[in-house]
Amino acid sequence: MFDLLIQNCNALVPENGRFTIRHAVDIGVKGDRIAAIEPTQPDPPATQQVVVANGQLAIPGLMNTHAHAPMVVFRGLAEDVTVHRWFNDYIWPLESNLTPEDVYWGMQLALAEMIESGVTTVTDHYFFMDEAAEAVVQAGTRAALGWAAFGSQGKEGLAKTAVFAQKWHNQADGRITTWMAPHAPYTCDDDFLRAAVAHARRLGIGIHIHAAEEMSQTESSLAKRGQTPIQVLAETGILDLPTIIAHGCGIIPADIPLLQQAKQVGIAHAPKTYLKLGSGLTPIPALREAGIPIGLATDGAASNNTLDILESMRLMVLLQKHEARDPEVMPLQEVLDITFHGSAAVVGLGEKIGRLQPGYLADVVLIDMDGMHQQPRHSLTAGFVYNTRAGDVQSVVVNGRLLLHNRRHLTLDKAQIIREVQKSMTRLAQRVPSKRIQVYNP
Amino acid sequence: MFDLLIQNCNALVPENGRFTIRHAVDIGVKGDRIAAIEPTQPDPPATQQVVVANGQLAIPGLMNTHAHAPMVVFRGLAEDVTVHRWFNDYIWPLESNLTPEDVYWGMQLALAEMIESGVTTVTDHYFFMDEAAEAVVQAGTRAALGWAAFGSQGKEGLAKTAVFAQKWHNQADGRITTWMAPHAPYTCDDDFLRAAVAHARRLGIGIHIHAAEEMSQTESSLAKRGQTPIQVLAETGILDLPTIIAHGCGIIPADIPLLQQAKQVGIAHAPKTYLKLGSGLTPIPALREAGIPIGLATDGAASNNTLDILESMRLMVLLQKHEARDPEVMPLQEVLDITFHGSAAVVGLGEKIGRLQPGYLADVVLIDMDGMHQQPRHSLTAGFVYNTRAGDVQSVVVNGRLLLHNRRHLTLDKAQIIREVQKSMTRLAQRVPSKRIQVYNP
Repeated sequence: MFDLLIQNCNALVPENGRFTIRHAVDIGVKGDRIAAIEPTQPDPPATQQVVVANGQLAIPGLMNTHAHAPMVVFRGLAEDVTVHRWFNDYIWPLESNLTPEDVYWGMQLALAEMIESGVTTVTDHYFFMDEAAEAVVQAGTRAALGWAAFGSQGKEGLAKTAVFAQKWHNQADGRITTWMAPHAPYTCDDDFLRAAVAHARRLGIGIHIHAAEEMSQTESSLAKRGQTPIQVLAETGILDLPTIIAHGCGIIPADIPLLQQAKQVGIAHAPKTYLKLGSGLTPIPALREAGIPIGLATDGAASNNTLDILESMRLMVLLQKHEARDPEVMPLQEVLDITFHGSAAVVGLGEKIGRLQPGYLADVVLIDMDGMHQQPRHSLTAGFVYNTRAGDVQSVVVNGRLLLHNRRHLTLDKAQIIREVQKSMTRLAQRVPSKRIQVYNP
Repeated sequence: MFDLLIQNCNALVPENGRFTIRHAVDIGVKGDRIAAIEPTQPDPPATQQVVVANGQLAIPGLMNTHAHAPMVVFRGLAEDVTVHRWFNDYIWPLESNLTPEDVYWGMQLALAEMIESGVTTVTDHYFFMDEAAEAVVQAGTRAALGWAAFGSQGKEGLAKTAVFAQKWHNQADGRITTWMAPHAPYTCDDDFLRAAVAHARRLGIGIHIHAAEEMSQTESSLAKRGQTPIQVLAETGILDLPTIIAHGCGIIPADIPLLQQAKQVGIAHAPKTYLKLGSGLTPIPALREAGIPIGLATDGAASNNTLDILESMRLMVLLQKHEARDPEVMPLQEVLDITFHGSAAVVGLGEKIGRLQPGYLADVVLIDMDGMHQQPRHSLTAGFVYNTRAGDVQSVVVNGRLLLHNRRHLTLDKAQIIREVQKSMTRLAQRVPSKRIQVYNP
């Protein structure tokens, strides 16, 4: 007997190192785990909770490996501006307005958007993270949370973020893990980074940090101190701990051996933001060849506008083919490998999520493949990668619990979230440059 | 009194050479035209047809300036292969299976997908176009249709496509226009192209053709005959007629003056296909600077997988910023200008569609902007360009007639279309290389 049964889906499962579709199966869930995937039984026992999938595609829950989710409250306020202006004239002045309550409702809005688009885990890097964690508790998703710290806040500021990390690690039935989150080598000096490492070591957690976001940062770091940002991470001991690096568009060949020697490192790839801000691209082929995991990400909605991992997935593969001018580059199997296994490895949960397989945590998303934009369904995998829209997601299970059913939220109150966020819009749109936390000058 | 009233929308309208949002307006339609756009009246006369928009965003109907719409029947069958293999091992062998009935139902499927995603006009280039035209009559959309002709079919084959063009030009209440559609300079010799020009001249219509699709075609044409594909179009008289060129990724600076001297020429830009096939990109900045209209397109679903112009729009702007490594490139206003005015000019209907303005044809699309991925709505234009999914389209009016209402089709039978297309799937997936119409070797 299962606690939850997903009945009659087509499941995207790993088989002999490849993804394949098992047609007409039931996925049985016990507690927080997938217990069985078996050919559909027409009459499930009436006592268990049943989600009737009617041939929908079941995939492992999508993972967003680097976001600033509550930044949805600034969505659409910083368009068509250079990275310098984006930080100095828009984002940091805007963030001077931010309150804990904004983060609470912004995180709920972001989680609602992500649940509706099949994202079950978010790796987040922002402020007032106690409120973000409370929103995760409410929403029922999985999250890896880090409270962003700037060198300008001093070590007391850093210590407060460590208090958050300690309080919330492995909370919410284990759905929440925490990470120390020093902002970046260009906003934190080496001493500050080493202090973050000491906190992380003490707490038994990892570090989530921006580094080598674009090539100009690498060039500037080399000019100022003779080291690349990745070398700084190695030098300060960060790479001796589990590390998530966003975004790595400025990673150079000399960095690769350092990343290979690291304890456990993954790179979060957010292509829509890179295109929009003109940042270049993460060197995915070189990193993959070196065995460094790549995960999909959206960054914050102030640059990415959406928190849609399906869109990130599609942009990633299209851009890899484009940059190589070779349509054979990154075939469907590799896209799926990065989307699921790569992303899970980046979040440090490669043994627990990212697979529809008995024993793995029950994070499952059901997608309607009946739309006119999917017909006729010669290939469900091609359809998933190239045709599926966030709006095709129908139902979402996280940790064995149903959060979205036929597009209806079971844990979040959409109308209330919209009301709460809208009432702060005018204040949130005010920019106070003199109050910005930093000046961007990497 | 209007025949149709769209009540209480936020309308994207041109004003002093820019796009702006008029909030809370009614759009009144008389016959096939927009008659008025006025502040919302709470109580419209009961006798007219009213579409209650409830604050939805009204935009001009989207235009797809180059497609092979019925190719949806091959969707997902040619993934991760080079352009040579795509043509020679997949598409042309697959098309040897094609029947007029496949085109009829394939066109209905494609039109249903496009209507649902806000596309009201398609410029199509394919085979068995009588059946495609019948599907357009049924669907109620606008279309610019050309029957594709290859040199290998001889002048009799070409003459048959001219019979189609003559029969259908300005039919279906003027919704259908026709174009001669020789395939490309690399599949049609000059004599054949001149014969197409003669037919077009006789019928008073234009030419829709593939040319300089990618740089290798331009290089090969220069090597073989010392002329670029665009020079061939000029030389054979095509550019003396209205011309739609797909895709122009191989246009070089020497081609630009020829395009400027042309009578009326536009370039159809289908970025998803270019990324997927590694074709490079249309040189949009140089073409825009020279005053050559650019329109958005999807190409066929066998390369593009979807017929989603919102996706083409988003990819276009993101790639322009990426290629220039400059986020200030192609700001929102320019995206909107290309999406609406550029596309209308490419289809040769710049004075008739692409604007919500009294006197223009009533092609209007209503978009739900209430989704969590749009909140909070600091900027409706940024939201439209960067956040809107095809599934957000709610209602569609073409030529003053409601085709889609709250996502329900009023002219097409989705269940029947899916049934008809699915029953031919096995046959359609068979590849018969020996029966292919051509060999790709530009």
